[in-house]
Amino acid sequence: MKKAKKKIKAAILIIGNEVLSGRTQDLNVSFISNWLNVNCGISVDEVRIIPDIEKKIIYNVLDLSQKFKYTFTTGGIGPTHDDITALSVARAFKVKYEFNKEAYSILEKYYGKNDFNDGRKKMAKMPKGSSLIYNPSSAAPGFKIKNVLCLPGVPSILKSMINNLKKFLIKGSTTMSVSVNLLTVESYIYLELGKLQKEYLKKIDIGSYPFFRLGKVGVSVVLRSSNKVHLKSCLRKLNKIIKNKKIKLFKNS
Amino acid sequence: MKKAKKKIKAAILIIGNEVLSGRTQDLNVSFISNWLNVNCGISVDEVRIIPDIEKKIIYNVLDLSQKFKYTFTTGGIGPTHDDITALSVARAFKVKYEFNKEAYSILEKYYGKNDFNDGRKKMAKMPKGSSLIYNPSSAAPGFKIKNVLCLPGVPSILKSMINNLKKFLIKGSTTMSVSVNLLTVESYIYLELGKLQKEYLKKIDIGSYPFFRLGKVGVSVVLRSSNKVHLKSCLRKLNKIIKNKKIKLFKNS
Repeated sequence: MKKAKKKIKAAILIIGNEVLSGRTQDLNVSFISNWLNVNCGISVDEVRIIPDIEKKIIYNVLDLSQKFKYTFTTGGIGPTHDDITALSVARAFKVKYEFNKEAYSILEKYYGKNDFNDGRKKMAKMPKGSSLIYNPSSAAPGFKIKNVLCLPGVPSILKSMINNLKKFLIKGSTTMSVSVNLLTVESYIYLELGKLQKEYLKKIDIGSYPFFRLGKVGVSVVLRSSNKVHLKSCLRKLNKIIKNKKIKLFKNS
Repeated sequence: MKKAKKKIKAAILIIGNEVLSGRTQDLNVSFISNWLNVNCGISVDEVRIIPDIEKKIIYNVLDLSQKFKYTFTTGGIGPTHDDITALSVARAFKVKYEFNKEAYSILEKYYGKNDFNDGRKKMAKMPKGSSLIYNPSSAAPGFKIKNVLCLPGVPSILKSMINNLKKFLIKGSTTMSVSVNLLTVESYIYLELGKLQKEYLKKIDIGSYPFFRLGKVGVSVVLRSSNKVHLKSCLRKLNKIIKNKKIKLFKNS
Protein backbone atom coordinates (compact mmCIF):
# COMPACT_ATOMS: atom_id res chain seq x y z
CA MET A 1 0.00 0.00 0.00
CA LYS A 2 1.46 3.36 -1.05
CA LYS A 3 1.38 6.17 1.48
CA ALA A 4 0.38 9.80 1.29
CA LYS A 5 0.69 12.10 4.29
CA LYS A 6 -2.39 14.13 3.58
CA LYS A 7 -6.01 13.28 4.25
CA ILE A 8 -7.70 11.20 1.62
CA LYS A 9 -11.44 11.57 1.14
CA ALA A 10 -13.90 9.11 -0.27
CA ALA A 11 -17.60 8.69 -0.98
CA ILE A 12 -19.92 5.70 -0.61
CA LEU A 13 -22.76 5.15 -3.07
CA ILE A 14 -25.38 2.68 -1.83
CA ILE A 15 -27.40 1.39 -4.76
CA GLY A 16 -30.66 -0.30 -3.81
CA ASN A 17 -34.41 0.29 -3.63
CA GLU A 18 -34.56 -1.93 -0.55
CA VAL A 19 -32.46 0.48 1.52
CA LEU A 20 -34.32 3.57 0.29
CA SER A 21 -37.73 2.07 1.02
CA GLY A 22 -36.72 1.31 4.59
CA ARG A 23 -37.13 -2.45 4.08
CA THR A 24 -33.43 -3.10 4.62
CA GLN A 25 -31.37 -1.40 7.31
CA ASP A 26 -28.04 -0.38 5.79
CA LEU A 27 -25.07 -1.72 7.73
CA ASN A 28 -22.38 -1.15 5.10
CA VAL A 29 -21.78 2.57 5.62
CA SER A 30 -20.53 2.28 9.20
CA PHE A 31 -18.49 -0.84 8.42
CA ILE A 32 -16.77 0.55 5.29
CA SER A 33 -16.21 3.94 6.87
CA ASN A 34 -14.60 2.50 9.99
CA TRP A 35 -12.51 0.05 8.00
CA LEU A 36 -11.25 2.72 5.60
CA ASN A 37 -10.24 5.03 8.39
CA VAL A 38 -8.50 2.46 10.56
CA ASN A 39 -6.80 0.49 7.79
CA CYS A 40 -6.22 3.01 5.05
CA GLY A 41 -6.37 6.48 6.58
CA ILE A 42 -9.22 7.32 4.23
CA SER A 43 -12.20 9.26 5.54
CA VAL A 44 -15.67 9.03 4.07
CA ASP A 45 -16.94 12.53 3.39
CA GLU A 46 -20.24 11.81 1.70
CA VAL A 47 -22.71 8.96 1.35
CA ARG A 48 -25.59 8.71 -1.08
CA ILE A 49 -28.35 6.12 -1.27
CA ILE A 50 -30.06 5.88 -4.64
CA PRO A 51 -32.51 3.54 -6.41
CA ASP A 52 -31.67 0.88 -9.02
CA ILE A 53 -32.15 3.30 -11.90
CA GLU A 54 -29.50 3.48 -14.59
CA LYS A 55 -29.47 7.21 -15.19
CA LYS A 56 -29.27 7.90 -11.44
CA ILE A 57 -26.35 5.48 -11.06
CA ILE A 58 -24.55 7.10 -14.00
CA TYR A 59 -25.12 10.63 -12.68
CA ASN A 60 -23.96 9.82 -9.15
CA VAL A 61 -20.96 7.68 -10.15
CA LEU A 62 -19.67 10.52 -12.34
CA ASP A 63 -20.47 13.24 -9.83
CA LEU A 64 -18.88 11.49 -6.83
CA SER A 65 -15.86 10.13 -8.72
CA GLN A 66 -15.03 13.66 -9.81
CA LYS A 67 -15.40 15.08 -6.30
CA PHE A 68 -13.59 12.39 -4.28
CA LYS A 69 -10.36 10.43 -4.50
CA TYR A 70 -12.29 7.14 -4.30
CA THR A 71 -15.93 6.16 -4.63
CA PHE A 72 -17.13 2.84 -3.21
CA THR A 73 -20.43 1.48 -4.48
CA THR A 74 -22.42 -1.29 -2.81
CA GLY A 75 -25.21 -3.38 -4.30
CA GLY A 76 -26.49 -4.34 -7.72
CA ILE A 77 -23.79 -6.77 -8.86
CA GLY A 78 -25.75 -10.04 -8.60
CA PRO A 79 -27.42 -12.16 -11.28
CA THR A 80 -30.98 -10.73 -11.37
CA HIS A 81 -32.69 -8.12 -13.57
CA ASP A 82 -32.39 -5.43 -10.87
CA ASP A 83 -28.59 -5.83 -10.69
CA ILE A 84 -27.52 -3.06 -13.05
CA THR A 85 -24.50 -1.51 -11.33
CA ALA A 86 -21.82 -2.98 -13.64
CA LEU A 87 -23.70 -2.02 -16.80
CA SER A 88 -24.42 1.47 -15.49
CA VAL A 89 -20.81 2.09 -14.42
CA ALA A 90 -19.63 0.97 -17.89
CA ARG A 91 -22.05 3.46 -19.46
CA ALA A 92 -20.97 6.20 -17.04
CA PHE A 93 -17.36 5.82 -18.19
CA LYS A 94 -18.32 5.09 -21.81
CA VAL A 95 -16.50 1.77 -21.97
CA LYS A 96 -17.75 -1.62 -23.14
CA TYR A 97 -19.75 -3.86 -20.79
CA GLU A 98 -18.26 -7.26 -21.46
CA PHE A 99 -17.13 -10.55 -19.97
CA ASN A 100 -14.02 -10.24 -17.84
CA LYS A 101 -12.02 -13.37 -18.70
CA GLU A 102 -10.61 -13.86 -15.23
CA ALA A 103 -13.99 -13.38 -13.55
CA TYR A 104 -15.55 -15.76 -16.06
CA SER A 105 -13.04 -18.45 -15.29
CA ILE A 106 -13.35 -17.96 -11.49
CA LEU A 107 -17.13 -18.33 -11.68
CA GLU A 108 -17.05 -21.26 -14.11
CA LYS A 109 -14.74 -23.09 -11.75
CA TYR A 110 -16.85 -22.24 -8.71
CA TYR A 111 -20.21 -23.35 -10.18
CA GLY A 112 -18.92 -26.11 -12.48
CA LYS A 113 -19.43 -26.02 -16.24
CA ASN A 114 -22.86 -27.68 -16.13
CA ASP A 115 -24.35 -25.24 -13.63
CA PHE A 116 -22.81 -22.08 -15.10
CA ASN A 117 -26.05 -20.55 -16.40
CA ASP A 118 -26.58 -17.10 -17.92
CA GLY A 119 -27.46 -15.50 -14.58
CA ARG A 120 -24.18 -16.66 -13.13
CA LYS A 121 -22.32 -15.66 -16.27
CA LYS A 122 -23.79 -12.17 -15.91
CA MET A 123 -21.73 -11.72 -12.75
CA ALA A 124 -18.59 -11.94 -14.90
CA LYS A 125 -19.72 -9.00 -17.05
CA MET A 126 -18.24 -5.67 -16.11
CA PRO A 127 -16.79 -2.48 -17.57
CA LYS A 128 -13.85 -3.13 -19.92
CA GLY A 129 -10.55 -2.47 -18.18
CA SER A 130 -11.82 -3.37 -14.69
CA SER A 131 -9.54 -4.98 -12.08
CA LEU A 132 -11.12 -7.66 -9.91
CA ILE A 133 -11.82 -7.39 -6.21
CA TYR A 134 -11.69 -11.03 -5.15
CA ASN A 135 -14.53 -12.59 -3.18
CA PRO A 136 -13.46 -15.43 -0.88
CA SER A 137 -16.98 -16.23 0.33
CA SER A 138 -19.17 -16.55 -2.76
CA ALA A 139 -16.72 -16.20 -5.69
CA ALA A 140 -18.48 -13.44 -7.68
CA PRO A 141 -15.89 -10.67 -7.67
CA GLY A 142 -16.34 -6.95 -7.27
CA PHE A 143 -14.40 -4.68 -9.58
CA LYS A 144 -12.47 -1.44 -9.76
CA ILE A 145 -12.48 0.90 -12.71
CA LYS A 146 -10.76 4.28 -12.55
CA ASN A 147 -11.34 5.50 -8.98
CA VAL A 148 -14.63 3.62 -8.50
CA LEU A 149 -14.67 0.35 -6.54
CA CYS A 150 -17.83 -1.75 -6.78
CA LEU A 151 -18.81 -4.10 -3.96
CA PRO A 152 -21.82 -6.31 -3.26
CA GLY A 153 -24.68 -5.22 -1.01
CA VAL A 154 -24.89 -8.27 1.27
CA PRO A 155 -22.90 -7.20 4.37
CA SER A 156 -21.35 -10.61 5.13
CA ILE A 157 -20.01 -10.99 1.58
CA LEU A 158 -18.79 -7.40 1.50
CA LYS A 159 -16.95 -7.94 4.79
CA SER A 160 -15.22 -11.05 3.44
CA MET A 161 -13.85 -9.01 0.50
CA ILE A 162 -12.80 -5.85 2.29
CA ASN A 163 -9.12 -6.66 2.72
CA ASN A 164 -8.82 -7.16 -1.03
CA LEU A 165 -9.41 -3.44 -1.50
CA LYS A 166 -6.08 -2.50 0.07
CA LYS A 167 -3.92 -2.99 -3.00
CA PHE A 168 -5.98 -0.43 -4.91
CA LEU A 169 -5.77 2.33 -2.30
CA ILE A 170 -3.21 4.92 -1.31
CA LYS A 171 -2.89 5.23 2.45
CA GLY A 172 -3.65 8.61 4.01
CA SER A 173 -3.37 9.86 7.55
CA THR A 174 -5.59 7.96 9.98
CA THR A 175 -8.10 9.94 12.00
CA MET A 176 -7.88 9.01 15.67
CA SER A 177 -10.69 9.65 18.06
CA VAL A 178 -11.31 9.81 21.79
CA SER A 179 -14.77 9.61 23.33
CA VAL A 180 -15.73 10.83 26.78
CA ASN A 181 -19.21 9.95 28.02
CA LEU A 182 -20.62 12.47 30.46
CA LEU A 183 -23.62 12.45 32.75
CA THR A 184 -24.78 15.89 31.68
CA VAL A 185 -26.78 17.65 29.00
CA GLU A 186 -25.42 19.57 26.02
CA SER A 187 -26.78 22.89 27.18
CA TYR A 188 -24.65 22.67 30.37
CA ILE A 189 -21.38 22.47 28.46
CA TYR A 190 -22.06 24.09 25.05
CA LEU A 191 -20.13 27.25 25.96
CA GLU A 192 -16.91 25.50 27.02
CA LEU A 193 -17.06 23.04 24.12
CA GLY A 194 -17.54 25.90 21.66
CA LYS A 195 -14.51 27.72 23.09
CA LEU A 196 -12.42 24.54 23.00
CA GLN A 197 -13.40 23.98 19.35
CA LYS A 198 -12.36 27.56 18.50
CA GLU A 199 -9.00 27.03 20.21
CA TYR A 200 -8.39 23.85 18.19
CA LEU A 201 -9.96 25.07 14.95
CA LYS A 202 -8.87 22.90 11.99
CA LYS A 203 -6.76 20.80 14.38
CA ILE A 204 -9.46 18.85 16.19
CA ASP A 205 -13.01 18.12 15.21
CA ILE A 206 -15.11 18.20 18.40
CA GLY A 207 -18.50 16.54 18.25
CA SER A 208 -21.13 16.37 20.96
CA TYR A 209 -23.85 13.70 20.87
CA PRO A 210 -26.67 13.32 23.39
CA PHE A 211 -27.55 9.77 24.43
CA PHE A 212 -30.08 7.90 26.55
CA ARG A 213 -28.68 4.68 27.95
CA LEU A 214 -29.63 2.46 30.87
CA GLY A 215 -32.19 5.05 31.90
CA LYS A 216 -29.61 7.82 32.04
CA VAL A 217 -29.27 10.98 29.98
CA GLY A 218 -25.77 11.85 28.83
CA VAL A 219 -23.52 13.42 26.24
CA SER A 220 -20.69 11.77 24.34
CA VAL A 221 -17.98 14.26 23.50
CA VAL A 222 -15.84 12.99 20.64
CA LEU A 223 -12.48 14.46 19.67
CA ARG A 224 -11.19 13.52 16.22
CA SER A 225 -7.85 14.36 14.66
CA SER A 226 -5.01 12.86 12.69
CA ASN A 227 -2.53 14.46 15.10
CA LYS A 228 -1.88 12.60 18.37
CA VAL A 229 -0.22 15.55 20.11
CA HIS A 230 -3.14 17.88 19.48
CA LEU A 231 -5.53 15.15 20.51
CA LYS A 232 -3.77 14.62 23.84
CA SER A 233 -3.57 18.30 24.70
CA CYS A 234 -7.21 18.86 23.73
CA LEU A 235 -8.27 15.89 25.86
CA ARG A 236 -6.36 17.34 28.84
CA LYS A 237 -8.26 20.60 28.46
CA LEU A 238 -11.56 18.76 28.10
CA ASN A 239 -10.84 16.86 31.31
CA LYS A 240 -10.17 20.15 33.09
CA ILE A 241 -13.53 21.49 31.94
CA ILE A 242 -15.23 18.32 33.19
CA LYS A 243 -13.54 18.66 36.58
CA ASN A 244 -14.27 22.38 36.93
CA LYS A 245 -17.92 21.91 36.03
CA LYS A 246 -18.17 18.91 38.38
CA ILE A 247 -19.58 16.64 35.68
CA LYS A 248 -19.66 12.91 36.43
CA LEU A 249 -18.57 10.31 33.91
CA PHE A 250 -21.04 7.77 32.56
CA LYS A 251 -19.91 4.24 33.34
CA ASN A 252 -21.37 1.49 31.27
CA SER A 253 -21.23 -1.28 33.85
CA MET B 1 -53.85 16.22 5.05
CA LYS B 2 -54.44 17.13 1.41
CA LYS B 3 -54.35 14.34 -1.12
CA ALA B 4 -52.71 13.96 -4.50
CA LYS B 5 -53.19 10.84 -6.59
CA LYS B 6 -49.72 10.76 -8.02
CA LYS B 7 -46.52 9.56 -6.45
CA ILE B 8 -44.71 12.06 -4.28
CA LYS B 9 -40.95 11.83 -3.95
CA ALA B 10 -38.74 13.05 -1.17
CA ALA B 11 -35.11 13.13 -0.09
CA ILE B 12 -33.48 12.69 3.30
CA LEU B 13 -30.35 14.66 4.21
CA ILE B 14 -28.50 13.24 7.22
CA ILE B 15 -26.21 15.90 8.67
CA GLY B 16 -23.55 14.58 11.02
CA ASN B 17 -19.86 13.68 11.19
CA GLU B 18 -20.72 10.87 13.62
CA VAL B 19 -22.72 8.96 11.00
CA LEU B 20 -20.13 9.49 8.25
CA SER B 21 -17.26 8.35 10.44
CA GLY B 22 -19.05 5.10 11.26
CA ARG B 23 -19.22 5.94 14.96
CA THR B 24 -23.00 6.13 14.92
CA GLN B 25 -25.21 3.69 13.05
CA ASP B 26 -27.95 5.65 11.29
CA LEU B 27 -31.44 4.43 12.18
CA ASN B 28 -33.42 7.40 10.91
CA VAL B 29 -33.45 6.60 7.18
CA SER B 30 -35.39 3.35 7.48
CA PHE B 31 -37.75 4.81 10.09
CA ILE B 32 -38.57 8.02 8.17
CA SER B 33 -38.81 6.21 4.86
CA ASN B 34 -41.24 3.60 6.19
CA TRP B 35 -43.29 6.18 8.02
CA LEU B 36 -43.57 8.48 5.00
CA ASN B 37 -44.67 5.66 2.75
CA VAL B 38 -47.25 4.12 5.09
CA ASN B 39 -48.69 7.35 6.49
CA CYS B 40 -48.26 9.86 3.70
CA GLY B 41 -47.81 7.96 0.46
CA ILE B 42 -44.46 9.67 0.01
CA SER B 43 -41.50 7.65 -1.22
CA VAL B 44 -37.90 8.49 -0.43
CA ASP B 45 -35.92 8.56 -3.66
CA GLU B 46 -32.53 9.70 -2.45
CA VAL B 47 -30.59 9.93 0.80
CA ARG B 48 -27.37 11.82 1.42
CA ILE B 49 -25.15 11.80 4.48
CA ILE B 50 -22.88 14.83 4.80
CA PRO B 51 -20.59 16.38 7.44
CA ASP B 52 -21.37 19.36 9.69
CA ILE B 53 -19.91 21.83 7.20
CA GLU B 54 -21.91 24.92 6.33
CA LYS B 55 -21.17 25.10 2.62
CA LYS B 56 -21.97 21.40 2.17
CA ILE B 57 -25.28 21.79 4.00
CA ILE B 58 -26.16 24.82 1.85
CA TYR B 59 -25.25 23.05 -1.40
CA ASN B 60 -27.20 19.89 -0.58
CA VAL B 61 -30.27 21.62 0.86
CA LEU B 62 -30.59 23.69 -2.31
CA ASP B 63 -29.84 20.79 -4.65
CA LEU B 64 -32.25 18.33 -3.01
CA SER B 65 -35.04 20.85 -2.40
CA GLN B 66 -35.01 21.69 -6.11
CA LYS B 67 -35.08 18.03 -7.16
CA PHE B 68 -37.69 16.67 -4.74
CA LYS B 69 -41.13 17.66 -3.46
CA TYR B 70 -39.85 17.49 0.14
CA THR B 71 -36.45 17.28 1.79
CA PHE B 72 -36.17 16.05 5.37
CA THR B 73 -32.97 16.85 7.25
CA THR B 74 -31.87 15.15 10.47
CA GLY B 75 -29.28 16.35 12.95
CA GLY B 76 -27.54 19.57 13.87
CA ILE B 77 -30.36 21.44 15.63
CA GLY B 78 -29.10 21.17 19.22
CA PRO B 79 -27.34 23.73 21.44
CA THR B 80 -23.64 23.05 20.73
CA HIS B 81 -21.10 24.61 18.35
CA ASP B 82 -21.45 21.73 15.85
CA ASP B 83 -25.21 22.26 15.51
CA ILE B 84 -25.29 24.47 12.43
CA THR B 85 -28.25 23.15 10.46
CA ALA B 86 -30.66 26.02 11.21
CA LEU B 87 -28.06 28.69 10.41
CA SER B 88 -27.00 26.91 7.22
CA VAL B 89 -30.58 26.43 5.99
CA ALA B 90 -31.24 30.15 6.61
CA ARG B 91 -28.18 31.00 4.53
CA ALA B 92 -29.19 28.52 1.81
CA PHE B 93 -32.52 30.33 1.39
CA LYS B 94 -31.00 33.78 2.04
CA VAL B 95 -33.32 34.61 4.92
CA LYS B 96 -32.51 35.92 8.41
CA TYR B 97 -31.42 33.50 11.14
CA GLU B 98 -33.33 34.79 14.13
CA PHE B 99 -35.30 33.87 17.25
CA ASN B 100 -38.64 32.30 16.49
CA LYS B 101 -40.98 33.84 19.10
CA GLU B 102 -43.10 30.75 19.56
CA ALA B 103 -40.07 28.44 19.88
CA TYR B 104 -38.50 30.89 22.34
CA SER B 105 -41.56 30.88 24.53
CA ILE B 106 -41.90 27.06 24.39
CA LEU B 107 -38.28 26.61 25.46
CA GLU B 108 -38.41 29.33 28.13
CA LYS B 109 -41.42 27.61 29.65
CA TYR B 110 -39.81 24.17 29.44
CA TYR B 111 -36.49 25.14 31.07
CA GLY B 112 -37.78 27.90 33.35
CA LYS B 113 -36.54 31.50 33.11
CA ASN B 114 -33.54 30.97 35.39
CA ASP B 115 -32.17 28.00 33.48
CA PHE B 116 -32.79 29.36 30.00
CA ASN B 117 -29.16 29.90 29.02
CA ASP B 118 -27.74 30.92 25.66
CA GLY B 119 -27.25 27.32 24.48
CA ARG B 120 -30.91 26.59 25.08
CA LYS B 121 -31.92 29.90 23.52
CA LYS B 122 -29.95 28.91 20.42
CA MET B 123 -32.46 26.13 19.81
CA ALA B 124 -35.13 28.81 19.26
CA LYS B 125 -33.10 30.40 16.45
CA MET B 126 -34.10 29.38 12.95
CA PRO B 127 -34.66 30.70 9.45
CA LYS B 128 -37.15 33.60 9.34
CA GLY B 129 -40.56 32.38 8.20
CA SER B 130 -40.16 28.86 9.59
CA SER B 131 -43.15 26.89 10.90
CA LEU B 132 -42.52 24.79 14.00
CA ILE B 133 -42.52 21.00 14.13
CA TYR B 134 -43.50 20.37 17.74
CA ASN B 135 -41.42 18.12 19.97
CA PRO B 136 -43.40 16.37 22.71
CA SER B 137 -40.39 14.66 24.26
CA SER B 138 -37.72 17.33 24.78
CA ALA B 139 -39.47 20.58 23.75
CA ALA B 140 -36.89 21.92 21.25
CA PRO B 141 -38.89 22.08 18.02
CA GLY B 142 -37.87 21.21 14.51
CA PHE B 143 -38.90 23.56 11.75
CA LYS B 144 -40.16 23.72 8.19
CA ILE B 145 -39.15 26.35 5.68
CA LYS B 146 -40.26 26.13 2.06
CA ASN B 147 -40.16 22.40 1.24
CA VAL B 148 -37.42 21.57 3.74
CA LEU B 149 -38.34 19.98 7.09
CA CYS B 150 -35.60 19.90 9.74
CA LEU B 151 -35.64 17.22 12.42
CA PRO B 152 -33.26 16.25 15.24
CA GLY B 153 -30.73 13.42 14.88
CA VAL B 154 -31.52 11.48 18.07
CA PRO B 155 -33.85 8.68 16.87
CA SER B 156 -36.10 8.57 19.96
CA ILE B 157 -36.76 12.33 19.81
CA LEU B 158 -37.30 12.23 16.06
CA LYS B 159 -39.82 9.41 16.47
CA SER B 160 -41.76 11.36 19.08
CA MET B 161 -42.15 14.27 16.60
CA ILE B 162 -42.94 12.36 13.45
CA ASN B 163 -46.75 12.67 13.55
CA ASN B 164 -46.39 16.44 13.72
CA LEU B 165 -45.07 16.40 10.16
CA LYS B 166 -48.41 15.36 8.69
CA LYS B 167 -49.99 18.79 8.54
CA PHE B 168 -47.20 20.03 6.29
CA LEU B 169 -47.40 17.22 3.74
CA ILE B 170 -49.60 16.41 0.77
CA LYS B 171 -50.59 12.75 0.69
CA GLY B 172 -49.56 10.71 -2.35
CA SER B 173 -50.30 7.16 -3.36
CA THR B 174 -48.96 4.60 -0.88
CA THR B 175 -46.58 1.98 -2.19
CA MET B 176 -47.67 -1.47 -1.06
CA SER B 177 -45.30 -4.38 -0.97
CA VAL B 178 -45.40 -8.16 -0.72
CA SER B 179 -42.38 -10.25 0.26
CA VAL B 180 -41.91 -13.94 -0.50
CA ASN B 181 -38.96 -15.66 1.13
CA LEU B 182 -37.62 -18.57 -0.89
CA LEU B 183 -35.16 -21.35 -0.13
CA THR B 184 -33.24 -20.89 -3.35
CA VAL B 185 -30.48 -18.79 -4.88
CA GLU B 186 -30.89 -15.84 -7.24
CA SER B 187 -29.21 -17.59 -10.15
CA TYR B 188 -31.93 -20.30 -10.10
CA ILE B 189 -34.75 -17.82 -10.68
CA TYR B 190 -33.16 -14.79 -12.38
CA LEU B 191 -34.64 -15.69 -15.78
CA GLU B 192 -38.26 -15.98 -14.62
CA LEU B 193 -37.98 -12.90 -12.40
CA GLY B 194 -36.53 -10.90 -15.28
CA LYS B 195 -39.43 -11.94 -17.54
CA LEU B 196 -41.97 -11.14 -14.84
CA GLN B 197 -40.42 -7.68 -14.38
CA LYS B 198 -40.64 -7.04 -18.14
CA GLU B 199 -44.30 -8.07 -18.13
CA TYR B 200 -45.04 -5.64 -15.30
CA LEU B 201 -42.69 -2.89 -16.41
CA LYS B 202 -43.56 0.44 -14.73
CA LYS B 203 -46.43 -1.28 -12.91
CA ILE B 204 -44.53 -3.33 -10.36
CA ASP B 205 -41.03 -2.92 -9.01
CA ILE B 206 -39.61 -6.42 -8.45
CA GLY B 207 -36.60 -6.69 -6.17
CA SER B 208 -34.60 -9.78 -5.31
CA TYR B 209 -32.45 -9.90 -2.18
CA PRO B 210 -30.28 -12.82 -1.07
CA PHE B 211 -30.24 -13.60 2.65
CA PHE B 212 -28.53 -15.93 5.12
CA ARG B 213 -30.72 -16.71 8.10
CA LEU B 214 -30.75 -19.49 10.68
CA GLY B 215 -28.01 -21.22 8.70
CA LYS B 216 -30.05 -21.19 5.51
CA VAL B 217 -29.44 -19.47 2.20
CA GLY B 218 -32.44 -17.82 0.60
CA VAL B 219 -33.84 -15.06 -1.56
CA SER B 220 -36.50 -12.52 -0.64
CA VAL B 221 -38.51 -11.50 -3.66
CA VAL B 222 -40.25 -8.19 -3.04
CA LEU B 223 -43.05 -6.81 -5.22
CA ARG B 224 -43.78 -3.10 -4.78
CA SER B 225 -46.56 -1.08 -6.37
CA SER B 226 -49.19 1.53 -5.59
CA ASN B 227 -51.77 -0.58 -7.47
CA LYS B 228 -53.37 -3.44 -5.52
CA VAL B 229 -54.79 -5.19 -8.61
CA HIS B 230 -51.43 -5.33 -10.37
CA LEU B 231 -49.80 -6.47 -7.15
CA LYS B 232 -52.25 -9.37 -6.73
CA SER B 233 -51.95 -10.58 -10.32
CA CYS B 234 -48.15 -10.33 -10.24
CA LEU B 235 -48.06 -12.28 -6.96
CA ARG B 236 -50.22 -15.01 -8.52
CA LYS B 237 -47.75 -15.33 -11.38
CA LEU B 238 -44.81 -15.36 -8.98
CA ASN B 239 -46.46 -18.16 -7.02
CA LYS B 240 -46.87 -20.15 -10.25
CA ILE B 241 -43.16 -19.74 -10.98
CA ILE B 242 -42.32 -20.92 -7.45
CA LYS B 243 -44.56 -23.98 -7.88
CA ASN B 244 -43.28 -24.85 -11.35
CA LYS B 245 -39.65 -24.56 -10.24
CA LYS B 246 -40.39 -26.56 -7.08
CA ILE B 247 -38.92 -23.93 -4.79
CA LYS B 248 -39.62 -24.29 -1.06
CA LEU B 249 -40.65 -21.36 1.08
CA PHE B 250 -38.44 -20.21 3.93
CA LYS B 251 -40.28 -20.40 7.24
CA ASN B 252 -38.97 -18.30 10.06
CA SER B 253 -40.08 -20.54 12.90
